[in-house]
Amino acid sequence: MRQNLYSISGQKIRGSKIRELLKYKSDDAFFFAGGLPATDLLPKQQFFDIAKEVLINNGDKALQYGPSPGYPPLRQYLRTRMKNKGLMFDNEEVMITSGAQQAIELCLKLFIDKHNGIVAEDPTFISSLNNLKNFSENVYPVSMENDGINIEILEETLRGNPNIKMLYTIPNFHNPTGIVTSLERRKEILELAEKYDLIIVEDDPYGEIRFDGEDIPTIKSLDKNARVIYVSSFSKILSPGIRVGWVVANKAFTDKLELFKQADDVHTSMPSQLFAHAFLTHYDLDQHIQKSKDLYREKSMVMANAIQTYFPKDCRYIQPQGGLFIWCSMPKGYDSNRLLEKCIERKVIFVPGSVFMHDFEKPCNCFRLNYSNASKDKIERGMQILGEILSEII
Amino acid sequence: MRQNLYSISGQKIRGSKIRELLKYKSDDAFFFAGGLPATDLLPKQQFFDIAKEVLINNGDKALQYGPSPGYPPLRQYLRTRMKNKGLMFDNEEVMITSGAQQAIELCLKLFIDKHNGIVAEDPTFISSLNNLKNFSENVYPVSMENDGINIEILEETLRGNPNIKMLYTIPNFHNPTGIVTSLERRKEILELAEKYDLIIVEDDPYGEIRFDGEDIPTIKSLDKNARVIYVSSFSKILSPGIRVGWVVANKAFTDKLELFKQADDVHTSMPSQLFAHAFLTHYDLDQHIQKSKDLYREKSMVMANAIQTYFPKDCRYIQPQGGLFIWCSMPKGYDSNRLLEKCIERKVIFVPGSVFMHDFEKPCNCFRLNYSNASKDKIERGMQILGEILSEII
Repeated sequence: MRQNLYSISGQKIRGSKIRELLKYKSDDAFFFAGGLPATDLLPKQQFFDIAKEVLINNGDKALQYGPSPGYPPLRQYLRTRMKNKGLMFDNEEVMITSGAQQAIELCLKLFIDKHNGIVAEDPTFISSLNNLKNFSENVYPVSMENDGINIEILEETLRGNPNIKMLYTIPNFHNPTGIVTSLERRKEILELAEKYDLIIVEDDPYGEIRFDGEDIPTIKSLDKNARVIYVSSFSKILSPGIRVGWVVANKAFTDKLELFKQADDVHTSMPSQLFAHAFLTHYDLDQHIQKSKDLYREKSMVMANAIQTYFPKDCRYIQPQGGLFIWCSMPKGYDSNRLLEKCIERKVIFVPGSVFMHDFEKPCNCFRLNYSNASKDKIERGMQILGEILSEII
Repeated sequence: MRQNLYSISGQKIRGSKIRELLKYKSDDAFFFAGGLPATDLLPKQQFFDIAKEVLINNGDKALQYGPSPGYPPLRQYLRTRMKNKGLMFDNEEVMITSGAQQAIELCLKLFIDKHNGIVAEDPTFISSLNNLKNFSENVYPVSMENDGINIEILEETLRGNPNIKMLYTIPNFHNPTGIVTSLERRKEILELAEKYDLIIVEDDPYGEIRFDGEDIPTIKSLDKNARVIYVSSFSKILSPGIRVGWVVANKAFTDKLELFKQADDVHTSMPSQLFAHAFLTHYDLDQHIQKSKDLYREKSMVMANAIQTYFPKDCRYIQPQGGLFIWCSMPKGYDSNRLLEKCIERKVIFVPGSVFMHDFEKPCNCFRLNYSNASKDKIERGMQILGEILSEII
């Protein structure tokens, strides 16, 4: 077979370490590596109760080809919901995607050629980072502070690299750090986007899962010039298996995104969309989300308390106000990949920080713990074991 | 906003004319423009009957994140089915995709950079053609003959363009022409692929729907060197709405395709995959396909007879042995786009041939008729009106 068999991104693509770690998920493991919502909260009974409506009454729609931008009643529901959240302006549209992941992929297709630059938080969500690197040969990292991306480094990066066309950011309960970008910082980001003429992709899968503190306006809601493309999903608030996400953007953009969507997968699974829509019609989504918030607040407290109890005192963690993750750090110089090796032996699984770093080959002293999926007992016991191993190492 | 806001493909992308024509689909229209399977054959009742198994018994899997290469029992079913069809060799794998469309998109991501060439039949399926053009700036058309792609022009094109890396082909009941590539031609295509070191993407959504004549071995089954990536889907034999397709390829390829799949949409809708799998477990797919074949044979005969009865004698058509389409041609010099304009007034909708052409701006005397979705009455009456309009024009 020929040399250079693969495309440039085909040669370079790496997988999600998180997906690899999923193989360690078992009944007797202490698994904190995923971003899985609590399985108990999945609407199994509700979906079964609406199955006749979806599969019989609306079966001709659920099983036949559907419209590329999404099932019309679901789009209408989301238009209203997004409008109520201050997210839609005149000439803006909602388009359904196969999860938020596809929305990001479509934005990259629409705006980015290999030579275009993209700037993103460092660390950031690995699958997004992989996507950015598949599309652009110039992905620039900007480190995080407690209130979001480091704005001085961001401006320096933008000033030095006029090829940068897009900023990718997760302002709410950032993955992996859990950090919330402050209102002030959001405004500064938008100002820089104006100054340097950037498209912002605002990835907000966790925004609805705030269990402490006050909501902060999305960057999209502050945007007067249609620079921001807002992306979200039902994955964390209803079901990730259905793969239903959406994008809110200027209609000029969604019209183009729709054409790429046609070419990607024609449309999102119709049973997925119709089940989601029937759920939204027959049940109260906000009430359902409230259950998640209550449970995740509780679990995050169990985890944070156990960390305080069992971890060596020179380990640090960020107390989350929402989302699914706690970001921990060992003292400088320690490598969380080596920590993971030791923990795997005792069936405690988490994601080492290097996975989320733009330069993923550099050792990293941080690691990400998920608290949404494991039981409170598992969290308590898992943190105890992790604390023991940390105490041996440090 | 900046100049060059969009990527190269973002500037150039065009939509599927077929998706635009869908707006004319209504109860009183004579709609022959889609590629929709018969709505009566959609397994609505069967899906409802297995809903408890999917959503309650397996609900924790159906609604939670799943594996990127697909739901394991569904992959296993397809491995066996593909093996029985002589499609899988040692070191080959099956991966589930969000429809065949995504499988093609993933192959383009894995192999094609902008400067790489791709050769494809002219005409060909518009959404595939759009995809090829999104990824490559050098898509080469090769005209069709009654037994498949013109092999002399193909070799000439390959000889003249050493940048060509991939051949995209639909050997069974080609879309839009319905042509079946002969066994001899398939072997010649594979020889040329060896000689010019090509990857072949064999798109086979219609292969199972042969209602006349004998099956011809797939190119994949003749391939000894893992050059062929075979792509198929449940869209035409079970349900297009579920968006479940698959790819059969060397494991080295599927391993890489899986990484791109992670970045595209994480995994295919789990309810879609679990409903498909439960259907395959509880019902006989081949029996279900037989129903489609019987119905489509009948409808294709109704359409062909009506064409013979009502169309002017100098119109030609290709009698299909399977698939969903009849390809018609007016005498040279007539433009099927203009024909469509006149037909829309009388609510008869089909797809003008130019839509499927690499050079879609050139007038084309051909057009595609779909017989799978309309009722026999609609087919009869629609062909009569179409015949009247053709007689006025020609």
